[in-house]
Amino acid sequence: MKIQKIEHIGIAVKDLKKSIRFYEEVLGVQCYKMEEVEDQQVTTAFFKIGDTKIELLESTSPEGPIAKFIEKRGEGIHHIAYAVDDLPGALREAESKGLRLIDREPREGAENFRIAFLHPKSTNGVLTELCEKPG
Amino acid sequence: MKIQKIEHIGIAVKDLKKSIRFYEEVLGVQCYKMEEVEDQQVTTAFFKIGDTKIELLESTSPEGPIAKFIEKRGEGIHHIAYAVDDLPGALREAESKGLRLIDREPREGAENFRIAFLHPKSTNGVLTELCEKPG
Repeated sequence: MKIQKIEHIGIAVKDLKKSIRFYEEVLGVQCYKMEEVEDQQVTTAFFKIGDTKIELLESTSPEGPIAKFIEKRGEGIHHIAYAVDDLPGALREAESKGLRLIDREPREGAENFRIAFLHPKSTNGVLTELCEKPG
Repeated sequence: MKIQKIEHIGIAVKDLKKSIRFYEEVLGVQCYKMEEVEDQQVTTAFFKIGDTKIELLESTSPEGPIAKFIEKRGEGIHHIAYAVDDLPGALREAESKGLRLIDREPREGAENFRIAFLHPKSTNGVLTELCEKPG
Protein backbone atom coordinates (compact mmCIF):
# COMPACT_ATOMS: atom_id res chain seq x y z
CA MET A 1 0.00 0.00 0.00
CA LYS A 2 1.02 3.61 -0.41
CA ILE A 3 1.04 5.52 2.87
CA GLN A 4 0.96 9.29 2.35
CA LYS A 5 1.52 10.36 5.93
CA ILE A 6 0.51 9.82 9.53
CA GLU A 7 -2.93 11.39 9.46
CA HIS A 8 -3.30 11.50 13.24
CA ILE A 9 -2.46 9.93 16.58
CA GLY A 10 -5.52 9.07 18.68
CA ILE A 11 -5.25 9.58 22.45
CA ALA A 12 -7.84 8.28 24.92
CA VAL A 13 -8.68 10.80 27.68
CA LYS A 14 -11.14 10.87 30.55
CA ASP A 15 -11.91 14.57 30.48
CA LEU A 16 -11.76 16.21 27.07
CA LYS A 17 -12.02 19.80 28.31
CA LYS A 18 -9.22 19.35 30.82
CA SER A 19 -7.01 17.67 28.21
CA ILE A 20 -7.70 20.40 25.63
CA ARG A 21 -6.52 22.94 28.21
CA PHE A 22 -3.31 20.94 28.68
CA TYR A 23 -2.56 20.85 24.95
CA GLU A 24 -3.37 24.54 24.52
CA GLU A 25 -1.79 25.99 27.64
CA VAL A 26 1.23 23.74 28.11
CA LEU A 27 2.11 22.43 24.64
CA GLY A 28 0.89 25.64 22.96
CA VAL A 29 -1.13 23.96 20.18
CA GLN A 30 -4.70 25.04 19.36
CA CYS A 31 -7.80 22.86 19.14
CA TYR A 32 -9.38 23.66 15.76
CA LYS A 33 -12.37 21.34 15.93
CA MET A 34 -14.52 19.18 18.18
CA GLU A 35 -16.79 16.53 16.72
CA GLU A 36 -18.93 13.68 17.98
CA VAL A 37 -18.53 10.37 16.11
CA GLU A 38 -21.62 8.34 17.01
CA ASP A 39 -20.40 5.15 15.36
CA GLN A 40 -17.44 5.04 17.76
CA GLN A 41 -19.19 6.53 20.80
CA VAL A 42 -16.67 9.32 21.18
CA THR A 43 -16.33 13.06 21.19
CA THR A 44 -13.08 14.10 19.49
CA ALA A 45 -10.91 17.21 19.61
CA PHE A 46 -8.31 17.90 16.90
CA PHE A 47 -4.97 19.74 16.95
CA LYS A 48 -2.83 20.27 13.86
CA ILE A 49 0.91 19.74 14.45
CA GLY A 50 3.14 19.88 11.35
CA ASP A 51 1.53 17.71 8.67
CA THR A 52 -0.20 15.45 11.20
CA LYS A 53 -2.78 15.79 13.98
CA ILE A 54 -3.46 14.81 17.56
CA GLU A 55 -7.01 13.48 18.03
CA LEU A 56 -8.19 13.41 21.66
CA LEU A 57 -10.98 10.91 22.29
CA GLU A 58 -13.48 11.00 25.17
CA SER A 59 -16.07 8.27 25.41
CA THR A 60 -19.74 9.27 25.23
CA SER A 61 -20.78 5.97 26.84
CA PRO A 62 -19.42 3.75 29.63
CA GLU A 63 -19.78 0.84 27.18
CA GLY A 64 -17.85 2.49 24.33
CA PRO A 65 -14.45 1.26 23.10
CA ILE A 66 -12.58 4.26 24.54
CA ALA A 67 -14.19 3.84 27.98
CA LYS A 68 -13.18 0.18 27.92
CA PHE A 69 -9.64 1.00 26.79
CA ILE A 70 -9.23 3.46 29.70
CA GLU A 71 -10.72 0.99 32.17
CA LYS A 72 -8.17 -1.62 31.10
CA ARG A 73 -5.02 0.44 30.45
CA GLY A 74 -5.65 3.96 31.68
CA GLU A 75 -5.49 7.12 29.59
CA GLY A 76 -2.92 7.13 26.80
CA ILE A 77 -2.17 6.61 23.13
CA HIS A 78 -4.96 4.60 21.53
CA HIS A 79 -4.11 4.33 17.82
CA ILE A 80 -2.07 5.59 14.87
CA ALA A 81 -3.90 6.50 11.67
CA TYR A 82 -2.14 6.32 8.30
CA ALA A 83 -3.57 8.17 5.30
CA VAL A 84 -3.74 6.00 2.17
CA ASP A 85 -4.88 6.75 -1.40
CA ASP A 86 -7.13 3.77 -1.88
CA LEU A 87 -8.61 2.41 1.35
CA PRO A 88 -10.49 -0.60 -0.08
CA GLY A 89 -7.35 -1.61 -2.01
CA ALA A 90 -5.16 -1.16 1.09
CA LEU A 91 -7.51 -3.41 3.11
CA ARG A 92 -7.41 -6.13 0.43
CA GLU A 93 -3.62 -5.90 0.34
CA ALA A 94 -3.34 -6.06 4.15
CA GLU A 95 -5.56 -9.13 4.23
CA SER A 96 -3.66 -10.82 1.40
CA LYS A 97 -0.46 -10.31 3.44
CA GLY A 98 -1.97 -12.14 6.39
CA LEU A 99 -3.07 -9.22 8.59
CA ARG A 100 -6.15 -9.51 10.74
CA LEU A 101 -8.70 -6.80 9.93
CA ILE A 102 -11.14 -5.33 12.46
CA ASP A 103 -13.10 -3.68 9.64
CA ARG A 104 -13.35 -5.51 6.34
CA GLU A 105 -15.13 -2.55 4.77
CA PRO A 106 -14.49 1.19 5.26
CA ARG A 107 -16.80 3.01 7.65
CA GLU A 108 -17.33 6.63 8.54
CA GLY A 109 -14.86 8.40 10.85
CA ALA A 110 -14.35 11.96 12.07
CA GLU A 111 -13.89 14.77 9.53
CA ASN A 112 -15.78 12.68 6.91
CA PHE A 113 -12.83 10.35 6.43
CA ARG A 114 -13.47 6.75 5.42
CA ILE A 115 -11.67 4.61 8.01
CA ALA A 116 -10.89 0.99 8.87
CA PHE A 117 -8.90 -0.59 11.71
CA LEU A 118 -6.30 -3.36 11.56
CA HIS A 119 -6.06 -5.66 14.57
CA PRO A 120 -3.13 -4.88 16.93
CA LYS A 121 -2.26 -8.60 17.04
CA SER A 122 -1.03 -8.20 13.45
CA THR A 123 0.74 -4.88 13.91
CA ASN A 124 3.24 -5.08 16.82
CA GLY A 125 0.55 -4.28 19.38
CA VAL A 126 -0.32 -0.98 17.68
CA LEU A 127 -4.00 -0.44 16.95
CA THR A 128 -3.66 0.85 13.38
CA GLU A 129 -6.24 2.85 11.44
CA LEU A 130 -6.04 3.25 7.67
CA CYS A 131 -8.00 6.21 6.39
CA GLU A 132 -8.85 7.97 3.15
CA LYS A 133 -9.62 11.65 2.85
CA PRO A 134 -13.08 12.53 1.52
CA GLY A 135 -13.52 13.75 -2.06
CA MET B 1 6.69 26.30 24.36
CA LYS B 2 6.82 26.25 20.59
CA ILE B 3 6.29 22.80 19.11
CA GLN B 4 7.52 22.57 15.52
CA LYS B 5 6.19 19.13 14.71
CA ILE B 6 5.86 15.57 15.91
CA GLU B 7 9.45 14.42 15.49
CA HIS B 8 8.64 10.72 15.89
CA ILE B 9 6.44 8.08 17.47
CA GLY B 10 8.35 5.45 19.44
CA ILE B 11 7.08 1.86 19.27
CA ALA B 12 8.37 -0.91 21.56
CA VAL B 13 8.93 -4.20 19.73
CA LYS B 14 10.32 -7.58 20.73
CA ASP B 15 12.04 -8.44 17.46
CA LEU B 16 13.38 -5.48 15.50
CA LYS B 17 14.18 -7.40 12.30
CA LYS B 18 10.74 -8.96 12.13
CA SER B 19 9.07 -5.60 12.78
CA ILE B 20 11.20 -3.86 10.13
CA ARG B 21 10.01 -6.48 7.62
CA PHE B 22 6.40 -5.71 8.58
CA TYR B 23 6.83 -1.96 8.05
CA GLU B 24 8.68 -2.46 4.77
CA GLU B 25 6.67 -5.28 3.24
CA VAL B 26 3.16 -4.51 4.49
CA LEU B 27 3.08 -0.75 5.08
CA GLY B 28 5.54 -0.07 2.24
CA VAL B 29 7.81 2.35 4.16
CA GLN B 30 11.60 1.98 4.14
CA CYS B 31 13.93 1.80 7.15
CA TYR B 32 16.64 4.42 6.50
CA LYS B 33 18.71 3.91 9.64
CA MET B 34 19.40 1.64 12.59
CA GLU B 35 21.23 2.93 15.64
CA GLU B 36 22.05 1.71 19.13
CA VAL B 37 21.40 4.21 21.94
CA GLU B 38 23.42 2.95 24.91
CA ASP B 39 21.98 5.43 27.37
CA GLN B 40 18.50 3.97 26.82
CA GLN B 41 19.55 0.35 26.27
CA VAL B 42 17.86 0.11 22.89
CA THR B 43 18.52 -0.52 19.25
CA THR B 44 16.35 1.74 17.10
CA ALA B 45 15.14 1.61 13.50
CA PHE B 46 13.79 4.72 11.76
CA PHE B 47 11.20 5.20 9.00
CA LYS B 48 10.33 8.59 7.53
CA ILE B 49 6.60 9.11 6.94
CA GLY B 50 5.53 12.58 5.78
CA ASP B 51 7.27 15.12 8.03
CA THR B 52 7.47 12.71 10.97
CA LYS B 53 9.06 9.33 11.74
CA ILE B 54 8.33 5.97 13.27
CA GLU B 55 11.08 4.83 15.66
CA LEU B 56 11.02 1.11 16.47
CA LEU B 57 12.72 0.25 19.77
CA GLU B 58 14.13 -3.14 20.75
CA SER B 59 15.74 -3.53 24.16
CA THR B 60 19.41 -4.51 24.30
CA SER B 61 19.01 -5.67 27.92
CA PRO B 62 16.33 -7.55 29.89
CA GLU B 63 16.63 -4.77 32.50
CA GLY B 64 16.18 -1.88 30.05
CA PRO B 65 13.12 0.42 30.05
CA ILE B 66 11.76 -1.04 26.79
CA ALA B 67 12.07 -4.62 28.04
CA LYS B 68 10.19 -3.60 31.19
CA PHE B 69 7.52 -1.77 29.20
CA ILE B 70 6.91 -4.87 27.05
CA GLU B 71 6.86 -7.12 30.11
CA LYS B 72 4.17 -4.95 31.67
CA ARG B 73 2.04 -3.88 28.70
CA GLY B 74 3.15 -5.90 25.68
CA GLU B 75 4.48 -4.47 22.44
CA GLY B 76 2.98 -1.17 21.32
CA ILE B 77 3.29 2.60 21.21
CA HIS B 78 5.80 3.75 23.81
CA HIS B 79 6.08 7.54 23.41
CA ILE B 80 5.46 10.63 21.28
CA ALA B 81 8.37 13.01 20.65
CA TYR B 82 7.75 16.69 19.92
CA ALA B 83 10.46 18.80 18.28
CA VAL B 84 11.00 22.12 20.06
CA ASP B 85 13.35 25.05 19.32
CA ASP B 86 14.77 25.47 22.78
CA LEU B 87 14.76 22.29 24.87
CA PRO B 88 16.15 23.72 28.14
CA GLY B 89 13.60 26.56 27.91
CA ALA B 90 10.76 24.13 27.15
CA LEU B 91 11.70 22.04 30.22
CA ARG B 92 11.72 25.10 32.47
CA GLU B 93 8.34 26.15 31.07
CA ALA B 94 6.87 22.65 31.54
CA GLU B 95 8.06 22.59 35.15
CA SER B 96 6.75 26.07 35.86
CA LYS B 97 3.33 24.91 34.60
CA GLY B 98 3.31 22.05 37.11
CA LEU B 99 4.42 19.13 34.92
CA ARG B 100 6.50 16.36 36.37
CA LEU B 101 9.80 15.91 34.50
CA ILE B 102 11.63 12.61 34.13
CA ASP B 103 14.73 14.44 32.87
CA ARG B 104 15.47 17.86 34.33
CA GLU B 105 18.37 18.28 31.91
CA PRO B 106 18.63 17.28 28.22
CA ARG B 107 20.47 14.06 27.47
CA GLU B 108 21.65 12.40 24.29
CA GLY B 109 19.14 10.52 22.12
CA ALA B 110 19.23 8.83 18.72
CA GLU B 111 20.32 10.83 15.66
CA ASN B 112 22.31 13.21 17.92
CA PHE B 113 19.14 14.86 19.18
CA ARG B 114 19.09 16.33 22.68
CA ILE B 115 16.09 14.77 24.42
CA ALA B 116 14.15 14.86 27.70
CA PHE B 117 11.06 13.00 28.88
CA LEU B 118 7.99 14.34 30.69
CA HIS B 119 6.24 11.99 33.09
CA PRO B 120 3.06 10.40 31.71
CA LYS B 121 1.23 11.22 34.98
CA SER B 122 1.33 14.86 33.85
CA THR B 123 0.44 14.27 30.21
CA ASN B 124 -2.79 12.22 29.95
CA GLY B 125 -0.92 8.93 30.28
CA VAL B 126 1.26 9.69 27.24
CA LEU B 127 5.00 9.31 27.78
CA THR B 128 6.14 12.52 26.09
CA GLU B 129 9.61 13.29 24.79
CA LEU B 130 10.70 16.83 23.94
CA CYS B 131 13.65 16.98 21.61
CA GLU B 132 15.89 19.47 19.86
CA LYS B 133 17.67 18.86 16.59
CA PRO B 134 21.45 19.06 16.69
CA GLY B 135 23.28 22.05 15.24
